[in-house]
Parts: sequence; structure tokens; C-alpha cells
Amino acid sequence: MAKDIILFETSYWKVILFEDQSYLGRCVILLKRNCGELSSLTFKEWSDFSENIVKKMEIVLKKSFNSTMFNWTCLMNDAYKDKYPKPQVHWHFRPRYKSKVTFEGEIFEDSEFAHHYSRERKKIVSNEILEKIAKKIKENF
Amino acid sequence: MAKDIILFETSYWKVILFEDQSYLGRCVILLKRNCGELSSLTFKEWSDFSENIVKKMEIVLKKSFNSTMFNWTCLMNDAYKDKYPKPQVHWHFRPRYKSKVTFEGEIFEDSEFAHHYSRERKKIVSNEILEKIAKKIKENF
Repeated sequence: MAKDIILFETSYWKVILFEDQSYLGRCVILLKRNCGELSSLTFKEWSDFSENIVKKMEIVLKKSFNSTMFNWTCLMNDAYKDKYPKPQVHWHFRPRYKSKVTFEGEIFEDSEFAHHYSRERKKIVSNEILEKIAKKIKENF
Repeated sequence: MAKDIILFETSYWKVILFEDQSYLGRCVILLKRNCGELSSLTFKEWSDFSENIVKKMEIVLKKSFNSTMFNWTCLMNDAYKDKYPKPQVHWHFRPRYKSKVTFEGEIFEDSEFAHHYSRERKKIVSNEILEKIAKKIKENF
């Protein structure tokens, strides 16, 4: 099983490539300070997010794997399973693909393309493949 | 069946209260110009969104219905069902509730609280109730 990889950091955010690559390039983007809701983000955190995360990730993923479009979600539901919730702002980033992608011998197929993402379908890749995905993305920064 | 209601507009965004109130206060926030992806938003569109939509909606919904937290998603999957997709940037806003809310004799219960939102569960309210929800939200602006 692969360990998540830190792809890059900005002043306010950390981009983590997930071991579950059901959507090739799937990342989680974590705010680096303690903050539990989007309405409490500062102006600088928002502009760093829009310019250095959203713009960068969408452009780089298109270059790297020819992603068709992208799903962005900020949910934080899991934190509320605790009696004393400590939510931490983070975004889920799922590149979506109209055609399957073969990369390093692995086939990545977005079988729900044009529909809501699936949370059941998983594709846990090996450490070696995850590192190669990270390398490929970084080459296109 | 109720018609969606325009709650308010900013310079760049339009906030629409959905007839499906499975999550009380559920809205869709539409960008007012043609634009198909988040990476193409301008600086002004992002700052209008963060300041006048996200901050405002979270604060006002807490005041109006005591929402516990919020799910924000930008997906646009449906547009890609077409042969020639014309995606249009929009956000789905779902207030989430740890306790049920009774409003104007209707019970709103977030039976998936602390879990991912359901896309199957619907609560289509009457026009009258939808207008009362809109009025209550507007009172707290």
C-alpha cells in the first residue's frame, strides 16, 4: 500500500497526492493553520488558493494526464462524527476523464465520467506508481 | 411544486434557493458570465465569491436556522453528458444540521449528518414554504 505524498506547499496550503487514485491525480489540499470553516479563511488564504492551487492544479493536470475537467469539494463531514468536532479546512480535488488513461502500465478509468464521483470505487496504487504520478505532475509545474 | 427563488445577486454571482430543501437552505450559486472552469475565474470573481457569498451565506444560515456546518462543491459533471459540453461554473451549497429543524410546521432532518450528503433523498417543498425560507434568510442579511 502506498503512502500519501506531499506534492507541494504554498504559503497557506499543502497539496497531498492520495494513495487512492480512483481519479488519476486525486489530491487533498489542506490549510496549514487551524481553521474549521471556509467563512473564516483570510483574504490571503483565498487568493493563494485560487491562484496557486486551483489554477495551477487544473493546468498541470491537463498537461500531465489530459484530464477533461475537475471536481472540487469542501465538505469536512467526518470531523462531526466526534463529540467535540475539530474540523480542519481542506479540499478534495478529483480530476475527471472522458477517456481512460494508461500510465506506467496501469489503466485509470473514470467509469462515472459526467456523473457524480463515486466514493465506493477505490484504486489504491503501489508506492512506486504513486511516486511516478507525483513525478509526472511535478515535471509540468 | 415550488419554483427556485433568486435569493440575491452580487456583481458576479447569483444565489438561487433550490426547490429541493433536503438540506434546509440549499442553494446553487451561479457565475453570471459564461465560464466553464474554476481556473478561469478572475481575481474579482474569486474575491466576490469568498467575501460576498461564502462568508455571507455561512453567517446568515447559522443565524436563520442554526446550521451546524456547510458543504461546498463545484462539480459540473452533468454538462459533460452532452456531445459538445458547455459547462457553466456554479457551486452547490448544502447547510448541514446536527439537530432537526422545525420551520413553519415542516420538519427538516439531516439524516446523513457527519456523513457525505445524499443525492437520492429529496424534499421538494411547496412554493409557500420556499418563499418563507427565502424571507427568513433575507431577514438575516
